[in-house]
Amino acid sequence: MIAQTLKWIGGVDGFLELIDQRQLPAELVRLQCADIGQLYEAIKTLAVRGAPAIGVAAGYGLVLGMQQLKPSADPAEAIAHLEKSAEYLAQSRPTAVNLFWALQRVKRKAQEFVADQSGANLQSLQENVLAEANDIYAEDVDMCRRIGENGQKFIKNGAGILTHCNAGALATAGQGTALSVMFEAQRKGKKFKVYADETRPLLQGARLTAWELKQAGIDVVLICDNMAGWLMKQGQIGAVITGADRIAANGDAANKIGTYSLSILAGEHGIPFYIAAPSSTFDLSIKSGGQIPIEQRDADEVRFFGDRKIAPDGVDIYNPAFDVTDAENITA
Amino acid sequence: MIAQTLKWIGGVDGFLELIDQRQLPAELVRLQCADIGQLYEAIKTLAVRGAPAIGVAAGYGLVLGMQQLKPSADPAEAIAHLEKSAEYLAQSRPTAVNLFWALQRVKRKAQEFVADQSGANLQSLQENVLAEANDIYAEDVDMCRRIGENGQKFIKNGAGILTHCNAGALATAGQGTALSVMFEAQRKGKKFKVYADETRPLLQGARLTAWELKQAGIDVVLICDNMAGWLMKQGQIGAVITGADRIAANGDAANKIGTYSLSILAGEHGIPFYIAAPSSTFDLSIKSGGQIPIEQRDADEVRFFGDRKIAPDGVDIYNPAFDVTDAENITA
Repeated sequence: MIAQTLKWIGGVDGFLELIDQRQLPAELVRLQCADIGQLYEAIKTLAVRGAPAIGVAAGYGLVLGMQQLKPSADPAEAIAHLEKSAEYLAQSRPTAVNLFWALQRVKRKAQEFVADQSGANLQSLQENVLAEANDIYAEDVDMCRRIGENGQKFIKNGAGILTHCNAGALATAGQGTALSVMFEAQRKGKKFKVYADETRPLLQGARLTAWELKQAGIDVVLICDNMAGWLMKQGQIGAVITGADRIAANGDAANKIGTYSLSILAGEHGIPFYIAAPSSTFDLSIKSGGQIPIEQRDADEVRFFGDRKIAPDGVDIYNPAFDVTDAENITA
Repeated sequence: MIAQTLKWIGGVDGFLELIDQRQLPAELVRLQCADIGQLYEAIKTLAVRGAPAIGVAAGYGLVLGMQQLKPSADPAEAIAHLEKSAEYLAQSRPTAVNLFWALQRVKRKAQEFVADQSGANLQSLQENVLAEANDIYAEDVDMCRRIGENGQKFIKNGAGILTHCNAGALATAGQGTALSVMFEAQRKGKKFKVYADETRPLLQGARLTAWELKQAGIDVVLICDNMAGWLMKQGQIGAVITGADRIAANGDAANKIGTYSLSILAGEHGIPFYIAAPSSTFDLSIKSGGQIPIEQRDADEVRFFGDRKIAPDGVDIYNPAFDVTDAENITA
């Protein structure tokens, strides 16, 4: 069964239920966010993660925000409150583009609704906000499915597929991007094996990708990142399929650190390298990959795992969050 | 200061002091092995590791074995005891070629000594065994130094050097193989920066290589294995230098998993790729790398990170201990 990362339960007075990704793979725990503060914490502490999933969660966060209003609140008061809620949620993950985009979209829709409808009241405004959050959700589910349907033709029957990090259902409201391709190939009855890189330092491949492929009944083998080239050399990999965080106008793609190396290794072994991403990932304001800023993350992500320190005191660490794969190394 | 992995203290009634590598990098603990059982445990539990270091430790293990004899033991009795000690120690790491080689060498030398010297007694036999163990030690120290002296010319002033796993002082009695090259370049006054792959699954790069380079005052930066290609792309790496476990007659080299990928990535970026290894690493009975058997290790090495489980229950794991780099990808 494909994991359902998040789900709104009930009407305007409902709550958001989401898989607590901090507990995976040890336990499958569903977290109920019944107020905006809980949702803020869920985003901040990575209980929910993945750009599309964060965007969808943020939309529902504004529905939760509206629940704080007294029934007597008038539309102007409600809009002012909504704007404050959006500002608050925007601080939960300051670099997540989808977060700002979703908050902006729901807020603007609500502002327009109040401006256009002279008979707007709190109830109708709340319904409008929930409808817009539901639309973002539904569009994400649909986007995932379409990526999978288009992409599944790249998976040959009997192939070994390599993926990196987590571009799965857990990163979206739907069935993922790179993993959606695998879910759709499975639906077509194809037989294949997926090799999942564990993806140091945060191990999203080991903790999340291996978990959700196994849940869905797909044959998955976990490997350390440094084993991928050797598997290619052995002829075990028929295609590499990953997601992307941002794609420049010329097709250069930023994705989790290690993706660039895989593209070189795939090229050397004559293996096609595919990126599965929605059109919203394209950032046409950026001409080429060289202009994509590379986020350097906390050295402790490399220095520690859980509570265990694995490196000597004071040693320097290089920890870029992602790298850029040249368009010429991407097959499709 | 370069780490001194092991050191015999005293005469034939002495003991072997070694760095307990299980405690690194958290603590530098020196373990005193004063009887053969302690030494057996030290090898078995990886307190001492690295093929050359294990060989040297085993030689001294036979000196410890002789200490169990009563002063009245005659040479024939002593040889029989020595043979039993060698059999016992051989079981500590059943796949370590250097272990068998060192035990065999010391045992044969003692057998010859007793056969040749009509006046041999227990004391002179013990001295003979210690002398042979000391010879193995001294040859290893010398081998390391010569590798470093020959190899240091490949390090350009100001270069970034990438290494994988641990081919350092901690793996030998001397100053290592790949790291010896860096220690000798440092001695020549060259300035350079070493990037150390953490080397999943057992993290020898993070725990050992980063530790010993830092101890020696060399500028070291720890990276995850999947960051190496991106560093090359950024122009940060001037050469890759690793050790080898076994080299076939045609020059194909088996080394820690991930080495093969580095050789491909280095080739793609026009970066020289060097292997620093003693001549004893050549196995001329093996024509090419394809004949080198690849050891598959316990899945739990990948499934766990320290005590923490990072993969879902029951997921398949692929965990080859090493890979084979084609001779054509090796610069020298």
